[in-house]
Amino acid sequence: MGSEVTIADTGEFELIDRITADLDADPRVLVGPGDDAAVLAVTSGSVAVTCDVLVEGQHFRRDWSTAIDIGRKAAAASLADVAAMGGTATALVVGFAAPPDLPTAWAVECTAGLREEAAAVGASLVGGDVVQGPVLVLSVTAIGDLAGRSPVVRSGARPGDVVAVAGRLGWSAAGLALLSRGFRSPKVLVDGHRFPQPPYAAGPAAAMAGATAMIDVSDGLVADLRHIAESSQVAIDLSTDGWEIPEAMQAAAAAYNLDPREWILTGGEDHALVATFPPDAELPEGFRVIGAVTPGGPSVSVDGQVRESAGGFRHFG
Amino acid sequence: MGSEVTIADTGEFELIDRITADLDADPRVLVGPGDDAAVLAVTSGSVAVTCDVLVEGQHFRRDWSTAIDIGRKAAAASLADVAAMGGTATALVVGFAAPPDLPTAWAVECTAGLREEAAAVGASLVGGDVVQGPVLVLSVTAIGDLAGRSPVVRSGARPGDVVAVAGRLGWSAAGLALLSRGFRSPKVLVDGHRFPQPPYAAGPAAAMAGATAMIDVSDGLVADLRHIAESSQVAIDLSTDGWEIPEAMQAAAAAYNLDPREWILTGGEDHALVATFPPDAELPEGFRVIGAVTPGGPSVSVDGQVRESAGGFRHFG
Repeated sequence: MGSEVTIADTGEFELIDRITADLDADPRVLVGPGDDAAVLAVTSGSVAVTCDVLVEGQHFRRDWSTAIDIGRKAAAASLADVAAMGGTATALVVGFAAPPDLPTAWAVECTAGLREEAAAVGASLVGGDVVQGPVLVLSVTAIGDLAGRSPVVRSGARPGDVVAVAGRLGWSAAGLALLSRGFRSPKVLVDGHRFPQPPYAAGPAAAMAGATAMIDVSDGLVADLRHIAESSQVAIDLSTDGWEIPEAMQAAAAAYNLDPREWILTGGEDHALVATFPPDAELPEGFRVIGAVTPGGPSVSVDGQVRESAGGFRHFG
Repeated sequence: MGSEVTIADTGEFELIDRITADLDADPRVLVGPGDDAAVLAVTSGSVAVTCDVLVEGQHFRRDWSTAIDIGRKAAAASLADVAAMGGTATALVVGFAAPPDLPTAWAVECTAGLREEAAAVGASLVGGDVVQGPVLVLSVTAIGDLAGRSPVVRSGARPGDVVAVAGRLGWSAAGLALLSRGFRSPKVLVDGHRFPQPPYAAGPAAAMAGATAMIDVSDGLVADLRHIAESSQVAIDLSTDGWEIPEAMQAAAAAYNLDPREWILTGGEDHALVATFPPDAELPEGFRVIGAVTPGGPSVSVDGQVRESAGGFRHFG
C-alpha cells in the first residue's frame, strides 16, 4: 500500500478536478463546482436543506466497507432526510476532511459513490470543500425541492391516523452484528450495513397521499417514532402481529440467540420512511401499516408495551 | 477543567436544544431546526450553495481563539463565498463533529459565534448535525440569495478591466505570525487571525456595479486572483504603488524583518472580496483599485513580476 498514490501526492486542486470530472449536466445547476458557490435554479418557491456528518470509526470502517459503499451511505443519509419532508433532492455539497495519506483512488471512488446515490434521485454533486484532517469526515448537505407542496413535518400526526412504513428495517443492524463478530456473510445482510437502500420515491408519494407526519429511520424505528410522538403530542402503538422477518435475518438472529424484531425496532441507518396517514388515506405503493396513532403520550409502545428510552443510537450517550 | 459539564454529560438532543434555542424568527425560514430538513422560501428563482470545512489544528486552535471567534470564523468562510457570487446568505446548516469531552459551554458559545456572524448578513442557523469524532470539525454550508441577478463567476474578467478589492488583506497572516511566535498582542493583529471581518455588503454592491468576476480571498490575494486569471484566461497585474500598510502591521513585520506586503499578497482567511470591473464602471464604496486585467496569461504579476505558485495555502501540498 506504501506505493499507492495518496491525496498528498495528488494535491487539493487536482483532487477536486478528479472528483468533479464528467458531472452530468443538469439544467437546474446554473453554476456547478469550481466557483465560490454553486447556483441552483429554484422554481417551486422553496428548498429543503439538511446535513449529515459521517466520521470514520463512528459511522463506517474502511476495512468493512468499500469507498463506494461509504460514499453511497453518506449521501443516502441526507437524501433520505429530504424524502422524509416529502421532497426530492436536487443537489449535494460535500465537506470532506481526510488524512494526507488517503489513497487518491479511495477519495475518487468515495465521491463516485456519493454521485451514484445522488443520481438515484436525479441529484447532482455541485460543490464542497476538501481539507486535511486526522480522520476521514464526510459532511453531506442535500438541497431538495418540494414541488410546491407543504413539507411533511414531524408534528402533524393525529389520533386515529395509521402508522405505515416504506423500505427496509433492521438490515443495517443485522449486518453490523455480523461484521462486528468477524463475519462477512451472508452478503445480503452485511451489504445492508454497508449501504442503505432508502425508498426515496415513497417520500413525495406519501406527501401526495396526505401523510400527516413523516421521518426517516436513521436512529431506529422506536427512537424516530418517538420524535413524531413528541412533536405531535400523541401516543403511537406498533403491532408486530404478522411481521414477516426475512429469512436471512431470522437465521442470523437464531445463531446469536437474538430476537430479530429488536433489530427491526431499534436498528438505525436503513433510512426507511415511516409516516402517519389519515385513516381514510389510500397508502402509496410500498407502504405497509405497522401501527396506529392514539390520544395520550407522548409515547411509543410495541404490542401495548411502552418503550422507554430503549433503542436508537445516541451520540455522546 | 475536569469538573466542567461536557457534551457527553449533556447528550446529543439536549445539546441541539441548547444550540438552537431562541433563534430569531425569519419569515424566509418556513421550517427551522428540529425536523428532517429545514425549508427555506426562495422567491428569486435561484439559490447559491457553498460549503467550508474547518478542522481543529488545521484551521484553528482552541488555545489561540475563543469558541465564539471560531464559530464566527467558520461561518464567515461560507458567508463570504456567497458574497463573492454577488449574493447574500440567508441560512446556514452546520455539521459539527466533536470529542465527547468537549465542554458543553464551548459548543454553545461556538454556535453563538456562528449565529452572530450569520446575523451580520441577516442569515439564520436552520439546521445541522452533531456527531462524535476524535477532533473538532465544523462543516458550514451557506445558502444564499442572488436577488434575481446573475452570479458573478470567476470566468468573466476581460482585458481592460480594473482589479479592485474591498476589505482587509494580510491581517490574519500577521496575527498568525504573532500567535505562532507566542505573542498575544497587539490585539488588533491577533484578532485579525482569530476572526475575519469580510465586507459582505460589497459582494452584492459589486454585482450591481457590473463586476465581471469576483472571488473572496481565502487562500491569498495572488493565489485567489490566479483562479480568476485561469478561469478567465487573462493576465492580472497588481501594483503595490501607494499601498498604505497599517501601522501595526508595519511594526510587527519590522520586528521580524519581514516585508508586510507579503502578508497582504499571500495571506489567506481575511475574506476580502477582489473583483474585476469594466474600465468605465463606478466602483462601489469600499473598493480600491489594485491592478489591471491585460491580455495573455493566465498569470498574476505584482509590479510587473510574474508570481509562480508562490503564496496561498494548499491542503495536502
